Order: sequence, then C-alpha cells, then structure tokens
Amino acid sequence: MVNRSCIIRLSRYRNALIRLKALNFVKVFSENLADAARVTAVQVRKDFSLFGICGNRRGGYLIDELIAQTSAILGKDKVQKFIVVGIGNIGRALLNYPGFRRSEIEIVAGFDVNPAKCDKEALIPILPFEEMGDFVAQNGITFGIISVPDSAAQEVLERMLEAGIKGILNFAPICLKEPKDHVVRNLNLETELENIIYFANFAEQTERE
Amino acid sequence: MVNRSCIIRLSRYRNALIRLKALNFVKVFSENLADAARVTAVQVRKDFSLFGICGNRRGGYLIDELIAQTSAILGKDKVQKFIVVGIGNIGRALLNYPGFRRSEIEIVAGFDVNPAKCDKEALIPILPFEEMGDFVAQNGITFGIISVPDSAAQEVLERMLEAGIKGILNFAPICLKEPKDHVVRNLNLETELENIIYFANFAEQTERE
Repeated sequence: MVNRSCIIRLSRYRNALIRLKALNFVKVFSENLADAARVTAVQVRKDFSLFGICGNRRGGYLIDELIAQTSAILGKDKVQKFIVVGIGNIGRALLNYPGFRRSEIEIVAGFDVNPAKCDKEALIPILPFEEMGDFVAQNGITFGIISVPDSAAQEVLERMLEAGIKGILNFAPICLKEPKDHVVRNLNLETELENIIYFANFAEQTERE
Repeated sequence: MVNRSCIIRLSRYRNALIRLKALNFVKVFSENLADAARVTAVQVRKDFSLFGICGNRRGGYLIDELIAQTSAILGKDKVQKFIVVGIGNIGRALLNYPGFRRSEIEIVAGFDVNPAKCDKEALIPILPFEEMGDFVAQNGITFGIISVPDSAAQEVLERMLEAGIKGILNFAPICLKEPKDHVVRNLNLETELENIIYFANFAEQTERE
C-alpha cells in the first residue's frame, strides 16, 4: 500500500540520486540512499519493490535508471503547473521560491481579491481572484496552493474544486476537508512549530530524569 | 504514547476552541472538535484522556478550561522565541508572517551570511551569522528555523546545536539527521507538492477504472 510517507521517502531518494549523479556517480546501493533519507536499507529496497523497481543487491542500482523510474512515479517526467491563491507573505514567497523550478514544478499564476496586489505584467502574473476559474480551465491547471486567511479558505477551496483543481496544499491555519477523488493537504506552520516546541520540551524533561 | 500526529491534533483542537470562544461558546462536545479537526469523536476523547483531560460526555468540556489545559501542554502559556537562519524568500516570509504572534510564537531575530541582507535596526533585526551563537546564549533561545540552501544546511544545524538550540524546523531541501535529545523536523516544500501530484494523479486513475 502506497501511503504519504512512502512518497515522501521516494522524493528523498530521488533528491539524493540527483546529487550523486552530479558527483559523477553511476551506481548506488540501497545503503547509500538509506543514509541520505535517514531510513534503513531494508526500507529502501521495500519501497522500490513496491513500485516494481529491482536492483542487483551486489551490483547496486544504476543511478540514471533509478532517476528515470522515480521521476515517472513522482510525475517529474513533465512540468506540473500550480496556481497560488492569496498573495500575502507566504504566497509571495512561494511565487519567488527558486527551488520549484529545478523540481519540474512551475507556479504559473497567483490570484488575490485585492486589486492592489494584482500585476498582470509580472513574470508570474498576479490576477484578480474572479478570473481564477477561467484561467484554470483555459490552461488545464490541476494543482493549487491556498495561502489566504483562515476565514476565506473554505470558499477558496470550493471555487478551486469547481474550477477543476485536483490537488491542493493549504497553508491557511484551518483544517480543510479532503473531498472524494481529490487531494487536500493541510500544512499549518504554527502547528509545525508547536510540535517542535512540545517535543523539544519533552526531550529536556527526559534529560533531567 | 504521545506522537507527532497526536500533537498536531491537539493544536487543531486548540485552534478550534479559540474560534468557538470568540463566538461566545462556553461548552464544547467531542463531536464538535472532531468536526473541526476532521477526526472521530472517539479520537478526540482518546487524545484528551492521554493528557489526563477529562470531560463530562453529557455536559461536554468547558472551553476555557480546555484552552488552558491544551495551551499548557503545547507550551502556549508563555511566548516561545525562535530565530531564523537564512533570509531568502522563505526566511523573509517567516519573519513577516503575522500568524505566529497570535500563537505565542515570536521570531526574535534573523541571521544571514550575506552582509547586504543584515539590518540591525529592523523591527526583527537581521544579524550576521557569526553573531548567532552569542545571541542564542545571551537571549536563552531554544528554537530555530533553517531556511538556507541545501549545501549550507548541515553546517548551520551543527552551529545551532552548539549554540544550545533544542528544536529546529528545517526548510532546506535536504534531510537533516535528528541528534539525540533534540528535535529536527524536515519540511521540504517540493516534497509536499510531489506528494499532492502523486496522489492527485492516482485519484484520477482510480476514477477512470
């Protein structure tokens, strides 16, 4: 069964493979990828076999083949287009984030209800929110990011789904429901930091005991 | 056993409680919190009992008490101070993110190796990276965020640990190892989007079948 954690590990293996290829490596062993992704070598082999990727345990895996195979699974064999709705601090950082381009992820437009934030002439245009539906339909967009305030998030989600968006990453600090046959992942920065605070405090307590 | 998912749910319950209190609610039922956090009511009661929080199933929980109890668990009873190392797009968005203040999370300083990015007079000062160790020691900082390029992330992590930082959120697109008695959470935006791409494509396939 392919779950979220498995796909996260696959992304990490692929990242490591690209770095190894840049160092002129030709072959890689499950132990190398295990080190890079902070898991066991058994886990690496189990993950690959889940997707029908076979290696020769003695000879290792060929890096070029592995990159091609993991890229196909992760949809990296073509550029995946995203829109961003809500051009506040997070939305703007996402528009300007250079990491996506090398990951075959392209943010093609931003949308905002505030006309003062719109800029049709920008490298990545920022358009009025009411044009979102037409833009998604005309450009065949499948993916979106929500970075609006919490009070607007549910309505924005519904409008994105109506427009035909299939997968959404939600940064608004509210937990949106995942509709059937769609993917909605809630990523709350406060919650992430609260987690770190809790477990760091807990680690301190166990030290003291 | 308290795990990451459990603390994420606790954060979500607390967020919902604060919204309900703002609507003048006095009591809440596990079913209400279950709806807000997208889990079952049984899960809500199980999570609370794990922390010794008891409700009256018929009468529900008192919102004020629940907020106080969950706040204490999540370290919300005092302001938690963070530093940000690496003032690129993500680092700058974090410095300017208004959501943290209402979550008792305060970003007190940013650090960067590039002198052109430093600004000691800013509302949240941006200081040279070499001053990080002294700043952390003098101000008793426990938490940090890494938003540097991948090639610098491991060294930055080590310097932060030496300085006394206990809990770290890492945005650099490389998987950092979690040392004993410390918390290091790797949050890779590309990986998050790859996950959405994979499962949205997978949902499309299952529709077609």
